[in-house]
Amino acid sequence: MTGEQDHGIDDDQRDAGADGLVDLYGLLAYGELSASLRMSADASSADDIGVQEALARMAHTEFGHYELFAARLRELGHDPVSAMGPFVSAISLFHDRTTPRDWTEGLVKALVGDGIARDFTREIAANLGPEDQTFIETVLDDSRTDDAIVSLVTQQIAGEPTLGGRLALWGRRLVGEAVAQAQFVAAERDALTNLILGGQGAPGDGMDLAELGRMFVRLTDAHAQRMTRLGLAA
Amino acid sequence: MTGEQDHGIDDDQRDAGADGLVDLYGLLAYGELSASLRMSADASSADDIGVQEALARMAHTEFGHYELFAARLRELGHDPVSAMGPFVSAISLFHDRTTPRDWTEGLVKALVGDGIARDFTREIAANLGPEDQTFIETVLDDSRTDDAIVSLVTQQIAGEPTLGGRLALWGRRLVGEAVAQAQFVAAERDALTNLILGGQGAPGDGMDLAELGRMFVRLTDAHAQRMTRLGLAA
Repeated sequence: MTGEQDHGIDDDQRDAGADGLVDLYGLLAYGELSASLRMSADASSADDIGVQEALARMAHTEFGHYELFAARLRELGHDPVSAMGPFVSAISLFHDRTTPRDWTEGLVKALVGDGIARDFTREIAANLGPEDQTFIETVLDDSRTDDAIVSLVTQQIAGEPTLGGRLALWGRRLVGEAVAQAQFVAAERDALTNLILGGQGAPGDGMDLAELGRMFVRLTDAHAQRMTRLGLAA
Repeated sequence: MTGEQDHGIDDDQRDAGADGLVDLYGLLAYGELSASLRMSADASSADDIGVQEALARMAHTEFGHYELFAARLRELGHDPVSAMGPFVSAISLFHDRTTPRDWTEGLVKALVGDGIARDFTREIAANLGPEDQTFIETVLDDSRTDDAIVSLVTQQIAGEPTLGGRLALWGRRLVGEAVAQAQFVAAERDALTNLILGGQGAPGDGMDLAELGRMFVRLTDAHAQRMTRLGLAA
């Protein structure tokens, strides 16, 4: 948060920006922690060791991201558990409403969730100060572990012709539930929404909700491209 | 396996020793991988972020151990998935029969399972060559992450007087199921059992099953001491 003082931003706006940043890292931290746990839970029902291993490895990477976000919160003088608190119910609801019926759905959920989380984080990074931008790049730069999962999914689809249609529907449901929970969070957390929208204007004073809508469109477009690469209709 | 040749051990015995070692690492690798997944699955039902975090951190450590065992198997020229295969059903049965009813049982299971696995690994290390002994020490030397979990369990017991009795029973059930599955594995895998018993004698030729029994007694004694430290009757 250093540096902003020099640009003539008043105390209220600076505090709002700081609140938004704590919200952002709290959201990202709990998103990664819960993704790590749910992904492992989905993997434990798989009968194939390769599937278990691929999902466990991805869960391991997500926990590593959680640790980085929690460390950044502590650096900024905030308790990670308190910062995550406001996002537990929306994220848990998302997972409860999208519990995979089998490990193939679990693999698709891992890919879709990780992809949207990355795109969202990249979108927001542009609105942060240089120190946080560098930090976010370090997190996102983490080794890509998707390849094993992509090939497990495409193998399954190749071997079971009706599966593609079911997984395409599943992908749409995942995004629908994610957008629903994201809108709920945006409505509740002004400072975070303001940060997402580029930090123009203090919270509550006429935020450009159309811009938020455009961001959702960009995220769902990127999702559609990922589904196509998996051989699924988006 | 280098070095054994110089001690006049014949080819059959050396092969049996190598088979035992592959079995050992396959067992330990799948034990860690499945513990990591089941622990996370148990954590995902906890309503407390601190509990989720503590179990997720332990799961993360176990996955790290899995990766070390898998890497050692590859170093020895074996495919980790093939080496783990013979142990999937016994380990999965253990977990299916000991699915925690709540996260407190999940925490106790994590402590008990991790403790027994460490004691077992330490027992066996003495029977291995120097290179594998050093490797095992590296794995076991990993940071101790139990403290957070121990304090979560003792806090719960302090706040709920009837809980101690239930968790004491639960601890006994965990050990009973573990011993049952271990006996099943020992009966099926001669080369592994021979390695566990100190490598004296070729497989099948009058292994000292009483020694195996004594090892189980040592492991359950150590377990009883851990339960006592938790304030639970063993």
